[in-house]
Amino acid sequence: MKAATSVRVAAVGCGYWGPNVIRNLDAVPGFELCCVCDVDPQRLRPVAARYPAARSTTDIEDIYNDSAVDAIYLSTPVSTHYALVRRALESGKHVLVEKPLATTVDEAEDLARLAAVNKRTLMVGHTFVFSPPVRKIKELIDAGLIGPIYYVETTRVNLGLFQKDVSVLWDLGPHDLSILNYWLDEVPVQVSSRGRSFHDEALEDVAFMTLEFPSGILAQVQLSWLAPSKLRRTSIVGRQRMVVYDDLEPVEKIKVYDRGIDRQPASFGEFQLTYRSGDILSPHLDTTEPLFTECAHFLECIQSGREPDTSPRTGVDIVRVLQAAERSLRFDGAPQLVYDDVAAIERTP
Amino acid sequence: MKAATSVRVAAVGCGYWGPNVIRNLDAVPGFELCCVCDVDPQRLRPVAARYPAARSTTDIEDIYNDSAVDAIYLSTPVSTHYALVRRALESGKHVLVEKPLATTVDEAEDLARLAAVNKRTLMVGHTFVFSPPVRKIKELIDAGLIGPIYYVETTRVNLGLFQKDVSVLWDLGPHDLSILNYWLDEVPVQVSSRGRSFHDEALEDVAFMTLEFPSGILAQVQLSWLAPSKLRRTSIVGRQRMVVYDDLEPVEKIKVYDRGIDRQPASFGEFQLTYRSGDILSPHLDTTEPLFTECAHFLECIQSGREPDTSPRTGVDIVRVLQAAERSLRFDGAPQLVYDDVAAIERTP
Amino acid sequence: MKAATSVRVAAVGCGYWGPNVIRNLDAVPGFELCCVCDVDPQRLRPVAARYPAARSTTDIEDIYNDSAVDAIYLSTPVSTHYALVRRALESGKHVLVEKPLATTVDEAEDLARLAAVNKRTLMVGHTFVFSPPVRKIKELIDAGLIGPIYYVETTRVNLGLFQKDVSVLWDLGPHDLSILNYWLDEVPVQVSSRGRSFHDEALEDVAFMTLEFPSGILAQVQLSWLAPSKLRRTSIVGRQRMVVYDDLEPVEKIKVYDRGIDRQPASFGEFQLTYRSGDILSPHLDTTEPLFTECAHFLECIQSGREPDTSPRTGVDIVRVLQAAERSLRFDGAPQLVYDDVAAIERTP
Amino acid sequence: MKAATSVRVAAVGCGYWGPNVIRNLDAVPGFELCCVCDVDPQRLRPVAARYPAARSTTDIEDIYNDSAVDAIYLSTPVSTHYALVRRALESGKHVLVEKPLATTVDEAEDLARLAAVNKRTLMVGHTFVFSPPVRKIKELIDAGLIGPIYYVETTRVNLGLFQKDVSVLWDLGPHDLSILNYWLDEVPVQVSSRGRSFHDEALEDVAFMTLEFPSGILAQVQLSWLAPSKLRRTSIVGRQRMVVYDDLEPVEKIKVYDRGIDRQPASFGEFQLTYRSGDILSPHLDTTEPLFTECAHFLECIQSGREPDTSPRTGVDIVRVLQAAERSLRFDGAPQLVYDDVAAIERTP
Repeated sequence: MKAATSVRVAAVGCGYWGPNVIRNLDAVPGFELCCVCDVDPQRLRPVAARYPAARSTTDIEDIYNDSAVDAIYLSTPVSTHYALVRRALESGKHVLVEKPLATTVDEAEDLARLAAVNKRTLMVGHTFVFSPPVRKIKELIDAGLIGPIYYVETTRVNLGLFQKDVSVLWDLGPHDLSILNYWLDEVPVQVSSRGRSFHDEALEDVAFMTLEFPSGILAQVQLSWLAPSKLRRTSIVGRQRMVVYDDLEPVEKIKVYDRGIDRQPASFGEFQLTYRSGDILSPHLDTTEPLFTECAHFLECIQSGREPDTSPRTGVDIVRVLQAAERSLRFDGAPQLVYDDVAAIERTP
Repeated sequence: MKAATSVRVAAVGCGYWGPNVIRNLDAVPGFELCCVCDVDPQRLRPVAARYPAARSTTDIEDIYNDSAVDAIYLSTPVSTHYALVRRALESGKHVLVEKPLATTVDEAEDLARLAAVNKRTLMVGHTFVFSPPVRKIKELIDAGLIGPIYYVETTRVNLGLFQKDVSVLWDLGPHDLSILNYWLDEVPVQVSSRGRSFHDEALEDVAFMTLEFPSGILAQVQLSWLAPSKLRRTSIVGRQRMVVYDDLEPVEKIKVYDRGIDRQPASFGEFQLTYRSGDILSPHLDTTEPLFTECAHFLECIQSGREPDTSPRTGVDIVRVLQAAERSLRFDGAPQLVYDDVAAIERTP
Repeated sequence: MKAATSVRVAAVGCGYWGPNVIRNLDAVPGFELCCVCDVDPQRLRPVAARYPAARSTTDIEDIYNDSAVDAIYLSTPVSTHYALVRRALESGKHVLVEKPLATTVDEAEDLARLAAVNKRTLMVGHTFVFSPPVRKIKELIDAGLIGPIYYVETTRVNLGLFQKDVSVLWDLGPHDLSILNYWLDEVPVQVSSRGRSFHDEALEDVAFMTLEFPSGILAQVQLSWLAPSKLRRTSIVGRQRMVVYDDLEPVEKIKVYDRGIDRQPASFGEFQLTYRSGDILSPHLDTTEPLFTECAHFLECIQSGREPDTSPRTGVDIVRVLQAAERSLRFDGAPQLVYDDVAAIERTP
Repeated sequence: MKAATSVRVAAVGCGYWGPNVIRNLDAVPGFELCCVCDVDPQRLRPVAARYPAARSTTDIEDIYNDSAVDAIYLSTPVSTHYALVRRALESGKHVLVEKPLATTVDEAEDLARLAAVNKRTLMVGHTFVFSPPVRKIKELIDAGLIGPIYYVETTRVNLGLFQKDVSVLWDLGPHDLSILNYWLDEVPVQVSSRGRSFHDEALEDVAFMTLEFPSGILAQVQLSWLAPSKLRRTSIVGRQRMVVYDDLEPVEKIKVYDRGIDRQPASFGEFQLTYRSGDILSPHLDTTEPLFTECAHFLECIQSGREPDTSPRTGVDIVRVLQAAERSLRFDGAPQLVYDDVAAIERTP
């Protein structure tokens, strides 16, 4: 039973990821899945059969034009994001769009502006921000348990699946950039990146990225579709504690190491380093599906008007970093400023 | 019983690493450990007690001046390498010196030249080149089992031990550079590096390095003294097979993945990628101590006159890469050519 | 499109396991899922909605009485097996019933006899026998790669899920017993078992079992619902090779160790043992869902009349071992013969 | 510099384990290593060379007869224990003897009695009792963190090394029995054991043992010299928490799982089980060598007259369990009482 105040949501895109989105939209109390849409009738059919209460259509214009639809979740190819989100916002809908927000900073900023002007919720589907281990680490950081962070290293590699329209940088990179943005609450100043296209003429299938943050934090990101075994491993090294986050571990996804190095004054202005080694804690994590939390957060933002954790601002920033990394790739790894002018950096939250 | 034709070898430096060297020199049949030396009598004493047949001295000049000494193994601080190796070669001794060969390319080249002129064996103690897993991977590469290599990624991190005279780049970096040099048989064209000194004003304790080789191979190296847990992990990704080498695994140090991606022509000039996934093999490795193999190789090179696997040429090349990486570090990660001129690259073996 | 010769199958039981069964029956070409059944309308409803082409009923008699139904897959509580299978066979249906076949040897034998008399396929759902790693190990054994087997050790533990009608012995035990039966092709002669009920007055939640096979093979089985972490680990130790099968490993579920001990004659009638240590191989496994293979095998047996790999004979034997283990539990671990008379042992295939 | 009150200790046995003992005796302040002994001059020579301050002898009578020797550490074959310990105690020496104390209960009790009469410290080298992870788990148990213990499961297997004079039960079994005795502070009431000699006519190379303790705790022990990979893994399952102790883990040897099952009354006298799943903690362990702690404890017991943690009583109990397990082995696994009469059980501390 949906309450009279249910938010009516349409799901667009029934490809690889779409069915997961639809299952979760359907499961969030307060959402009413009113419509499912895909240009391909073959992809649409099984979904329509499974959710008989939702109207099905191959024409997204039906959704834009239906004033009873409050919100749209777009799971469509990256290249379509800008046009579809724009039309949705113009039609007065709230929008949740898969990552990345758009393919250029200009387009991303245009969408952010439009959402603000139209007073609609615009949220980007950076799903990892809603995953229990990523949120638990955010808690640890905010509680000061890690201490000032020195550096973050992250590895996101596997064999395949090659994308046809985006490189590994634009495919896997948004995950790490959104996680870093969420944890560190700042946007990199500078990025350098190297990559290579071993199996495709144009699109990199392996890329390395080094990011420098305003606070001095360094981050290293390794992305590959060409790796012998799947790895999803991130180390966060702080002054007080160090964290290893391995998303493939079935149980102990996070380990908090009470380890560090203390620098103590010795005689004659010299310093002495002492190593500290304590317990290792693997905190219990709740098992809510990140996509459910994301959908519930979308609903809450629509209803309360609050800014989503994966706001348009975040979406723009991530596209900005990807664009700078792309430039660095073109210039053999030469470091690139993320913002062109200092003023812009100062505007960074 | 040592044969009349034994090579008389002196060991200089009885610090952290020295006793391991001495134990192995003593164990190699054909070497006669004739002398042990350290400037610090306290470090020298227990070693002298353990090898009563070897003369002990705190003055290295005794060794240079003793015409009965054929060879010297130097395990002394990096800053002393140039002067000590030079004197040793001038005294007509064969020399094995710990890595890196010297602290500048000019000095390293000077030593290489001197060894050639004096017709003495000069070898650098890049010990990993003599370790069973590294040699087994070399065999796999040379046998064509890996196929053309795409990229190599290596992680060498732990908590401590901070060095006082060299950064993590110069301390841990030579290991990966010598392994890459041995496997790939080529010298990087270009390097970019980022790093940071979190616990020391001057010396980086964390550094990332990206290397580009003439053949197009990309390598990524991660070095840190500030990591929650020790990692020694290298992935080699080739067209035919992929290898993971984890030096901390007690048994399965190498895993060979019969995996890859095949690119097949599809209609209309398009290509289709298919994923190949076969067995995983962990080859049996012999358990000879790398340092023993290294010492035995030193002896063999002295006796046969052959070029060591870790030749002066290799030693110079590694210092050259380190120096270029150091420049990149100073310029915020800007990529640096390893050789200043194209001619030099072409001279590369 | 189903061919005119499709075998019409009914699925009875829509609880925890039932929906998986139904999904696979529906997916096997040649089966026509004609009916779904559960006594509980609430469990039945979502299944019925998902498979609109299948008739749904809460009364199993509808199925027995429907002459168009060829076969029944029963996923109902253990205590119902005997009565339901009996009625199904009497109605002329082929039957696949979840493990164990029945709760006593007498009942199990009665069912086996009835199936033979009625010339119907009766198969037991010992699903692990159809899993890729278990089948791969069978191949290795049959090819002689393991050599004569010495012993098997298996651990199947986790936290929960407590069953209300059967002990851990009868719940988890059939998995290991069916796997051992499939691999070794023999029935244990003798079994001893210890267990304890820590959380329930009557039903053991922890049990250990030692099995002795006619060939001299020893097997040790550990079963627990009270373990800190989930383990599914089996070691098979043979004269030529040793195998470790870890069902929780995402990729390397099987490792074949080329290891062993060779006994060589030494002087004076003495023997000397030498240790052999070679490569470790993790063979590639196909990823077909075991339940799909099981359903397809059921179809094939119905159509060809061949004996299922998990035949009534096997089902009876496993109940026989469970019953003997239960007796041993009651007598504080005193070893129990599996067959009461020697003649019975000799009848064992 | 050794104080005037140093305890003068002689080390007997310079085989596989002896040199470790001698190194630690030499390192404990308060002990003066006065003598080293082995019947084999070849084994004695290198030890004697390394410890020139200690007298060396091939005749143990020299030690018995030397009134300046206060204590003896015996690392000799199991079959020699009884005679050598007896002579040592009669000569008025304190004795630490490798495990097991003797080969029969009668002999073990005789030695315990003799030590009591002569007021000498007699200690058994159950070294694991002095290892940091075993002691940490004892602390956790004593602090009530585990809650009442349900069962313990332990696996101690590897490939080789076959012993020539004792079976795997008597070789590896004492480790687990001494650990269980230390943790649980009680002696098993009953034991059953199965084993097999695959490579030797007489001595089992694989053995399983099930132990029942007076408090109702169950323990399962797996011992093998015939296993594909080395395992040293123990699970302790309690009502409040569960512990996994893996001695081969380089860092996280202990993991404490805040997990369990709570039984709550439901309606109509029924009970409901709820699963509890909290953090996992890996406590920091100190890195003192167990053998050093053992030697230091021996010294402390000599000086203070206190009962060693691995007392003669403990030594006798362990031999008693081994002897009962041996009987069970001979009777195909039939359970055996550890004590012959009930009175004896009641005497158990």
